[in-house]
Amino acid sequence: MKRRSFLTGAGLTAVAASTLPAPAIAAGKRKLKMVTTWPKNLPGVGVSAERLAKRIKVLTEGKLDIKVYGAGQEVPPLQCFDAVSSGAADVYHGAEYYWQGKSPAFNFFTTVPFGMTADELCAWIYHGGGQELWDELSAGYNIKAMMAANTGVQMGGWFRNEINTLEDLKGLKMRMPGLGGEVFRRLGVAAVTMPGNEVYQALESGAIDATEWIGPWNDLALGFYQIAPYYYWPGIHEPGPALAAGWNLDVWNSFTDHQRTAIETACAMENDVCLADYNYHNAVALQTLVSEHNVKLRRFDPAILAALKKTSIEVVAEMAEKDPMTKKIHASFQKSLTMQRKWTRIADQAFLNARDPQE
Amino acid sequence: MKRRSFLTGAGLTAVAASTLPAPAIAAGKRKLKMVTTWPKNLPGVGVSAERLAKRIKVLTEGKLDIKVYGAGQEVPPLQCFDAVSSGAADVYHGAEYYWQGKSPAFNFFTTVPFGMTADELCAWIYHGGGQELWDELSAGYNIKAMMAANTGVQMGGWFRNEINTLEDLKGLKMRMPGLGGEVFRRLGVAAVTMPGNEVYQALESGAIDATEWIGPWNDLALGFYQIAPYYYWPGIHEPGPALAAGWNLDVWNSFTDHQRTAIETACAMENDVCLADYNYHNAVALQTLVSEHNVKLRRFDPAILAALKKTSIEVVAEMAEKDPMTKKIHASFQKSLTMQRKWTRIADQAFLNARDPQE
Repeated sequence: MKRRSFLTGAGLTAVAASTLPAPAIAAGKRKLKMVTTWPKNLPGVGVSAERLAKRIKVLTEGKLDIKVYGAGQEVPPLQCFDAVSSGAADVYHGAEYYWQGKSPAFNFFTTVPFGMTADELCAWIYHGGGQELWDELSAGYNIKAMMAANTGVQMGGWFRNEINTLEDLKGLKMRMPGLGGEVFRRLGVAAVTMPGNEVYQALESGAIDATEWIGPWNDLALGFYQIAPYYYWPGIHEPGPALAAGWNLDVWNSFTDHQRTAIETACAMENDVCLADYNYHNAVALQTLVSEHNVKLRRFDPAILAALKKTSIEVVAEMAEKDPMTKKIHASFQKSLTMQRKWTRIADQAFLNARDPQE
Repeated sequence: MKRRSFLTGAGLTAVAASTLPAPAIAAGKRKLKMVTTWPKNLPGVGVSAERLAKRIKVLTEGKLDIKVYGAGQEVPPLQCFDAVSSGAADVYHGAEYYWQGKSPAFNFFTTVPFGMTADELCAWIYHGGGQELWDELSAGYNIKAMMAANTGVQMGGWFRNEINTLEDLKGLKMRMPGLGGEVFRRLGVAAVTMPGNEVYQALESGAIDATEWIGPWNDLALGFYQIAPYYYWPGIHEPGPALAAGWNLDVWNSFTDHQRTAIETACAMENDVCLADYNYHNAVALQTLVSEHNVKLRRFDPAILAALKKTSIEVVAEMAEKDPMTKKIHASFQKSLTMQRKWTRIADQAFLNARDPQE
């Protein structure tokens, strides 16, 4: 255990831990620092981080007192991982795919294009060996991570004009980061990356023609519909992104068994409650967008979806070759997905198609 | 608060609670009794009850020590509700629709034919006012209930012969309880109710021609495929049944805030983890059933699905008229479902249809 990061991270007083009798540590209250990749209290993911911190405090009867920092308050969002790895912060709440520069394998613990739904991801991570692989990957960076929220299926994006054929995608300037961006890039889109707070202005100025963001709930607040009224479905680039709580491993190991159980339980609850939050409020916001703001819902043409699917599989497979750990994790992910999709097809998917025929 | 049930239910020693100083109560360990509607340690739901009890014990640092009883060990499964209501037991783990004899409204907190998926049910209960209505309903029986597991979409059932037309359903003897049974009955099926442990023999003797049970994971263990090799999908009678933990209300009110939070968090985690357990192991078992046991998967004919849908809506609407509380809960459920299905249709359903076209 690295003493420095243990003390800094744990926020204990400057007395060396080993000189304290065990009960004093057990009775001690620890102030912990959570950095997040979201604006403070952003509906959905930002509120989720706050709710999680509060619940951990209650479950540990005040012993783990976590202060939540919004993106940029302590460190820029994409530096949350390094901050926790080094012990400058104790825990992050964010999306693992933001760390794909460290290893592409992190993508699998958020989402990949044409990959798993939220429910399928839970099946793999809780019961199909996913968590063990995640632990192995994260331990290499002195981190212990776990699912702690999910946004559900994201939307395909906002477009200034209708997209009817693959030809219409060529040369389109679109805000679309990560693997989804690479998929669209291969279909001729000029995919660019920019933070959420710059997107509206970029759309307005014509710097971009289209943008993906999250889903109706978060998108409504940013007002994209005012400029790009065509709202396309389904989103295939992020079919159920999990968000994670990642703990500095020395801090994690310094917790009591009770505290670790409290954290794991609170994170799993948040995973359940946050997905439901998105599903409920996306439905409410969808209603508002269509009935009050005249948003035009459009389904991607089957030929476009087929091209996106083929390209997504290529992009993910190529990525998986980049290093042995990514290859190993991809193999486990793919094995679970291949098996689970056969069940999903005759279960949720078939039920939904019987209840609400798609065509 | 009823003193007698408080003391009995809570398992405190016979000293009147009010004569103890507060810290003595706080330090006290309580032994609690959980009755369940499942065979002890049945894979899936039975294991789920045990896992929940253990987690609550850890989260409360041993203060709430819950002993789990399988179906019939203390009371017959359908009497769990009365046992908890009276304080003879402290908590049940079961399916709310088993109590539909008390009020048909309980059905909505498990599942109804052509109703909500597991994810949609979570959205309504956590965020759409469902929990508040559930509390109001259950309080009338001195109970506080919450979601604590889910089996996901169930299968359509095992049939000795192929079912190609509505005509093939007429006169068919099928094990199908509850609202699903009523739906099939209106289509001419002789729907009967019998406990799981009698089904195999009834199929073998020809007393019944078909049976629904749960899904591949639990069904495989009971060996129905040996007699009725046609396994039909989708199950439309139970599209994502939640299971519940229901606490004697006096016992619930006697818990500390910390203990109530620990229980709620553990139940929500179990809701997440159990659904994932079913999804994962249903996929594994489906593979085994098809590749090792030659089970013939069949999709219900669209005309049959359409008739089941029409009849399901009628059955649920008629049921909702039975008492004012059921009517009120149905209205809330229906409002949420009407809104949510529009989101599900362009989100999960559309993504799944793009990933794995159904036809």
